Amino acid sequence: MRAVDLITKKRDGGELSKQEIDDLVQGYTDGTIPDYQMSAMAMAIFFRGMTPDERANLTMAMVHSGDVVDLSPIAGVKVDKHSTGGVGDTTTLVLAPLVASIGVPVAKMSGRGLGHTGGTIDKLESVPGFHVELDNDQFIDLVNRNGLAVIGQSAHLTPADKKLYGLRDVTGTVNSIPLIASSIMSKKIASGADAIVLDVKIGDGAFMKSIEEARELAACMVDIGNRVGRRTIAILSDMSQPLGYAIGNALEVKEAIDTLRGNGPDDLTELCLTLGSHMTVLAGVAATQAQARTMLEQSIASGKALEKFKTFLSAQGGDASVVDEPSRLPTAAYQIEVQAKRSGYIAAIAAESVGVAAMMLGAGRVTKESQIDLSVGIILHKKIGQAVHEGEAIATIHANRAEIDDVREKIYESIVINDDVITSPNLLAGEIS
Amino acid sequence: MRAVDLITKKRDGGELSKQEIDDLVQGYTDGTIPDYQMSAMAMAIFFRGMTPDERANLTMAMVHSGDVVDLSPIAGVKVDKHSTGGVGDTTTLVLAPLVASIGVPVAKMSGRGLGHTGGTIDKLESVPGFHVELDNDQFIDLVNRNGLAVIGQSAHLTPADKKLYGLRDVTGTVNSIPLIASSIMSKKIASGADAIVLDVKIGDGAFMKSIEEARELAACMVDIGNRVGRRTIAILSDMSQPLGYAIGNALEVKEAIDTLRGNGPDDLTELCLTLGSHMTVLAGVAATQAQARTMLEQSIASGKALEKFKTFLSAQGGDASVVDEPSRLPTAAYQIEVQAKRSGYIAAIAAESVGVAAMMLGAGRVTKESQIDLSVGIILHKKIGQAVHEGEAIATIHANRAEIDDVREKIYESIVINDDVITSPNLLAGEIS
Repeated sequence: MRAVDLITKKRDGGELSKQEIDDLVQGYTDGTIPDYQMSAMAMAIFFRGMTPDERANLTMAMVHSGDVVDLSPIAGVKVDKHSTGGVGDTTTLVLAPLVASIGVPVAKMSGRGLGHTGGTIDKLESVPGFHVELDNDQFIDLVNRNGLAVIGQSAHLTPADKKLYGLRDVTGTVNSIPLIASSIMSKKIASGADAIVLDVKIGDGAFMKSIEEARELAACMVDIGNRVGRRTIAILSDMSQPLGYAIGNALEVKEAIDTLRGNGPDDLTELCLTLGSHMTVLAGVAATQAQARTMLEQSIASGKALEKFKTFLSAQGGDASVVDEPSRLPTAAYQIEVQAKRSGYIAAIAAESVGVAAMMLGAGRVTKESQIDLSVGIILHKKIGQAVHEGEAIATIHANRAEIDDVREKIYESIVINDDVITSPNLLAGEIS
Repeated sequence: MRAVDLITKKRDGGELSKQEIDDLVQGYTDGTIPDYQMSAMAMAIFFRGMTPDERANLTMAMVHSGDVVDLSPIAGVKVDKHSTGGVGDTTTLVLAPLVASIGVPVAKMSGRGLGHTGGTIDKLESVPGFHVELDNDQFIDLVNRNGLAVIGQSAHLTPADKKLYGLRDVTGTVNSIPLIASSIMSKKIASGADAIVLDVKIGDGAFMKSIEEARELAACMVDIGNRVGRRTIAILSDMSQPLGYAIGNALEVKEAIDTLRGNGPDDLTELCLTLGSHMTVLAGVAATQAQARTMLEQSIASGKALEKFKTFLSAQGGDASVVDEPSRLPTAAYQIEVQAKRSGYIAAIAAESVGVAAMMLGAGRVTKESQIDLSVGIILHKKIGQAVHEGEAIATIHANRAEIDDVREKIYESIVINDDVITSPNLLAGEIS
């Protein structure tokens, strides 16, 4: 096998065999296939696409390029959830204790990552004392005991994907659906998932800007999962405006607590119930979506879900009293209201741009080395379609600096108010299984 | 300018500006743009093509990436000729003295290269004492004095093209018409050509297998040349069988001498007169093709052309007596006839495969380090369409080893004899200017 022959085959529309894909991924991982051949291959894939078999084989080749987590000491079907980016997405913080509280085992491997706010682990670290420094046995033991634990992502998980992702980022080959899909699926499968629920976001704040693209990505991931024996379903959800109201680390933890208590934003609550129902059914804990949803709603109503969150925080060294006293979470020095300049209806809340505003306050990482300020962020007070009066607060900036004109300006840019009554966008845009 | 943005622009069908192409080529030459970005760009170009302006700008950016030969101390229009590969192509050896003999200045920069037989310089080195170790002043002086000189290619000519060509070779991006065209044209222009005559070969022994591809490549090169102020014309010529009868270095020199004397193969003679007429008109030495052709024919008939060849060889240290006594050229130890296994008509002489047979004897380089055996090669005795009798010699192998069964077998594979009368293919398949 010469790499150039594989590139030429793909370039001319041929289908790579399992053996060819295995050789390619292994050669790239061990360095015998150089970056300049892999980038030409990635560009050929961008133009030619990949067949269903190729995508599945690429996914599994990347899974086997590094460590594969063995969750078999945990009883039951291990269901993982993945959201494809988004702004102010607090779902994992809510979902993990919510489904665990009704008996769906959650063995979550999570990251920090770059972005407008931190990753799930950063957010959880807002809780004083909380940590993810568990060894594998402790991790398995906690899931078996409490039904829930979160651990940092292993450094040796899918090294082929890490290397390829870095290369794609600088060679104009990020935006290829089969490459995106196999990247996501390889990480989930290597993390030990038996079944996978995907939340593919659409719109301004998401990677997929149109419903057609989102549907294609979702279908591609679902096909990969089912083809390699991991039952996979995807929902498509709106990200034309931020989910919930909070964008920021501690602010999102507080919003998650409110949601687990039954007082969360409607959209966040609905999305968590939808995703949670799918997870519950895939785990075999409920027979139908409707049954699962009822179980989840009851768990919230009874306080079981919130109790599970406390148990989880305590088990990983966290101060669970923050749940009842959220003021113990990191708090920014300044809370500054942003007031509507005119009356009318909210026509747009550009999610991406609100995310950038949060990042300007220090809520996210610009580079891997950036320090995150867990206390800062933005609380929105409106959703698209709502009426607003001149002078009314449309957002509150939580900052550790008094001078926030740049952030206020960014928020004014993000939120459009006009005279026409506007229908609120649908949160759920479809489901693929 | 970030390279990834240029790659994405091209990937999405955009047109790169002159500045963007200059930055790309300069960055690639000085190493600030790594191979892995350039290979992704080359693959994007493979799929998207290049606009006429892009091709011209790429060509000139590669020209300016290294030395540019200044032929202005030579009076007149300096016309260069380029053939796109082929097997047994002896045209340069004939054309250079032929057009020089009627006053077209020939300042030829030539290479060694890889291939079935050597490059023009290798072939000329069959003449004892001949060398191309001239400095630039000597080179210019010889052209001014004799109208003709050949020098080795400068190491600093079009370094961007050299680097890109090496990369394309291992990334499946050789076969892109705009990249092939700009590569060829950049070398000709950097070598100092004012005007260019191109001989684009078609068929089994050529890089372009179909007339459509050949026409596209020719049109692309002609457009580049004319766009950057170098008058360029192209002819399309058949390479479904080897040109002339000789394949080998000293053997081709002998065939060139025969042709300059007026006793050469019809096809080689015709191609040299056609290309030579174009060169003569572009140089302004004749007003029309017909006039140019008459001048060239007269030069052959009068012995002027052959005399020019002798002057040229002597001026560069060569023993010009080989012209009248070709037995002084390197001669192989064995001459072994290959006899027809049956009677019939020659249906095919697979040029590529005959070239490989010559290479098996040592006539060409497999790697840059290979030593060439100047004496060996193959003399064909037939052309497509000719009748042949069982036992008649169809080729003679010139070898320095007694055991040549492998080569004979290869020749039998290459030459197809069957019962049907076959029309000889047309040598000239079109002209683009």
